[in-house]
Amino acid sequence: MAEKIQRLPGFRDFFPEDCAVRNYIFSKWRDVSAIYGFHEYDGPILEPTELYKKKSGDEILTQLFHFEDRGERSVAMRPELTPTLARMAVARQRDYKKPLRWYGIGQFFRYEKPQKGRTREFYQLNTDILGEKSKEADAEIISFAIDIMRSMGFTNNDFVIRLSDREVWLDFLNSESISEDSQESFLQTIDKLERQNPEKTQKDLQTLGTSLESVNNFINTNHEKSHFHNILDNLKARGLSDFVKIDLNVVRGLAYYTGTVFEVFDTKKNMRAVAGGGRYDKLCSVISDGATDIPACGFAMGDVVISDLIKSTKAANSKLLNHLAVNDCADVYLVIADENKRTEAIKTLQELRNSGFKTVHSLAQVKVAKQFSSAENLKARTAIIIGREFPEVTVKDLFNKTEQVVNIDDISKTVETIIKSPLDPPLFS
Amino acid sequence: MAEKIQRLPGFRDFFPEDCAVRNYIFSKWRDVSAIYGFHEYDGPILEPTELYKKKSGDEILTQLFHFEDRGERSVAMRPELTPTLARMAVARQRDYKKPLRWYGIGQFFRYEKPQKGRTREFYQLNTDILGEKSKEADAEIISFAIDIMRSMGFTNNDFVIRLSDREVWLDFLNSESISEDSQESFLQTIDKLERQNPEKTQKDLQTLGTSLESVNNFINTNHEKSHFHNILDNLKARGLSDFVKIDLNVVRGLAYYTGTVFEVFDTKKNMRAVAGGGRYDKLCSVISDGATDIPACGFAMGDVVISDLIKSTKAANSKLLNHLAVNDCADVYLVIADENKRTEAIKTLQELRNSGFKTVHSLAQVKVAKQFSSAENLKARTAIIIGREFPEVTVKDLFNKTEQVVNIDDISKTVETIIKSPLDPPLFS
Repeated sequence: MAEKIQRLPGFRDFFPEDCAVRNYIFSKWRDVSAIYGFHEYDGPILEPTELYKKKSGDEILTQLFHFEDRGERSVAMRPELTPTLARMAVARQRDYKKPLRWYGIGQFFRYEKPQKGRTREFYQLNTDILGEKSKEADAEIISFAIDIMRSMGFTNNDFVIRLSDREVWLDFLNSESISEDSQESFLQTIDKLERQNPEKTQKDLQTLGTSLESVNNFINTNHEKSHFHNILDNLKARGLSDFVKIDLNVVRGLAYYTGTVFEVFDTKKNMRAVAGGGRYDKLCSVISDGATDIPACGFAMGDVVISDLIKSTKAANSKLLNHLAVNDCADVYLVIADENKRTEAIKTLQELRNSGFKTVHSLAQVKVAKQFSSAENLKARTAIIIGREFPEVTVKDLFNKTEQVVNIDDISKTVETIIKSPLDPPLFS
Repeated sequence: MAEKIQRLPGFRDFFPEDCAVRNYIFSKWRDVSAIYGFHEYDGPILEPTELYKKKSGDEILTQLFHFEDRGERSVAMRPELTPTLARMAVARQRDYKKPLRWYGIGQFFRYEKPQKGRTREFYQLNTDILGEKSKEADAEIISFAIDIMRSMGFTNNDFVIRLSDREVWLDFLNSESISEDSQESFLQTIDKLERQNPEKTQKDLQTLGTSLESVNNFINTNHEKSHFHNILDNLKARGLSDFVKIDLNVVRGLAYYTGTVFEVFDTKKNMRAVAGGGRYDKLCSVISDGATDIPACGFAMGDVVISDLIKSTKAANSKLLNHLAVNDCADVYLVIADENKRTEAIKTLQELRNSGFKTVHSLAQVKVAKQFSSAENLKARTAIIIGREFPEVTVKDLFNKTEQVVNIDDISKTVETIIKSPLDPPLFS
């Protein structure tokens, strides 16, 4: 026998129960984006490889699914959305009033070693403000990040925004007389500060002309007044200051950031970044070879880490389960107790669906007990039993275990009343 | 200067106004799927190339974006969802009660010559019932297809379901004593009947041992009683018979169909199939090398043709525009008329968002007139003017051109009343 065909390593199947969780995360991403007045956009999943090389250099190739297409173009499955955003914004920036407030939800691909929290494909929310250089835009993006977390049921016990600014580090480089050429490797070293052993860091810093002691002293200086007061005052006015702390350890790995950088940090046992963002004022210029300059800041959150965090955080998980319970059940299971009434049942089925009720019936002729077991399996809220007595039908509230006999003409009203009635006992208390 | 990076041929950018149309189509697909009790699933965008070869033979390769990944696996960007569905259903069929009622919305990729109505990527709704062999399942899928069209504002003036059955053609082959080996090429010839010139068809049919005359006579025979009464009676009970006509010209191009086949046919000037489906009882067995047999029927609709059809059909297009008008506008634009009150404005912004209102403000300090022009640009329903008189603020209904002064504590109630008030004049009459 031939070998069974299996899905590729690092790729996920979304069976209905997995897809429902994915869609819950998407719904929160979309709801908060809408409330902030962001508009959804999307770009192609396949782009010229050049687009990514332009942003990140040739090293990016080792992480890409890239190949030559049948037309001999070098193409890559997108590893991120920002280069596409820059390409699109540059192409049609004159057609839109600034600032652009855009968000995208899509799938991305990176050829990496699959491990916990890291897959070869993932979904990501990307939210960006283009064409606005003020710190208010940075504050708006950070506030957005906080509200995404809050919408999922996380509190300031669960996460903190670690806020930093690359310009603060540039001041440091100036004060230490370190040349601008070393800027990138210096920031890479800072990025690794918390993970790398101190001797290695000390060595790296000394090569660059400074020391671990100077760096640590600088991190522990109070920078709030000078660099961060705009953002902090803004977040305070929103009532969100409790969610933010200044932390210069954060520089974010990606080279393209130019100012404010931040990450959403899981403060519980995992102690990891679950999302991040910042200001990248030069990317549009890089992508357009200097033709178009658009200041920008943005935020991205993947689905893999956040979905782990939801499942391991009690309040967030309850919120998820509650959503699934309400959204994934059928409103009505139509039980056909007398096959002679199948035509009437099918007519009722269509009428209930026309009224917007999620309605299912058995496609095969099976015993009533089996139909009830299907109703239970689908977590149907009500069962309507169509039998000999039609047009009188029995309506069962399958959660509250009550039943009533009604005329078929009153069926929509009856079902609506049951669906809207509070559950007893409640699904979650 | 380096060449400008452009998107690949046959791929689409979805700027916000395009993405809104895409999302409208998705919302209809999702709403009707939910009402029918289907559950959403999804699979990877990249699969082993073998999966598609197994279903469609090696010829499929010329239409695929396929390549060797860094782990030397032969992989392909998915051209369709059904092979993935079969792989998933086979892998975990014991975990779900039959029938599975699953739908997927995703993007697919085919290396074809881009032209009107055909791109190299497209979105598709796939809706399938697995594990039920009765004709009721076929009727359920056809009814679903009709309701997808109805949900978009199409009537039986706009489209018809052309219903056919491959088994009817197998009866014909039997009656003409044509061997089973010729079945596939015979069905391919029937598939081309309406597009190919009759002489060529006649030649093809004669090679197979029959004639155009026999075929045409057979098509014009009344087959309703014998083969189609189950489906037609079912659709009649649903009140949907007006949407269906028997038409044996339809066999659907794909080799894997085994019984009922149908297409949603645009009856207006374009005279083309906009979607289609049918029964494919052998696919799971093929994918699992005979290990697992699951009867199945399904339906698929792409986004490209349907979106053209919506835009060219008056009622459907009004429905789309109405949806966009309601969904894509901001609820509130917060006008800051006095910069000294920015903190109060930011606080109000957050409170409105906490209450679920889509609220936007100017991130930069700009003149009031410019803020109103932004409000108009965002099609904001109301403007709240925060000025010297705070906590008294002016609330403008930007559609009805009325205004009132209220205390900031009453702001949510005031905005809610305006948003819910009927528009005068109505957006669409």
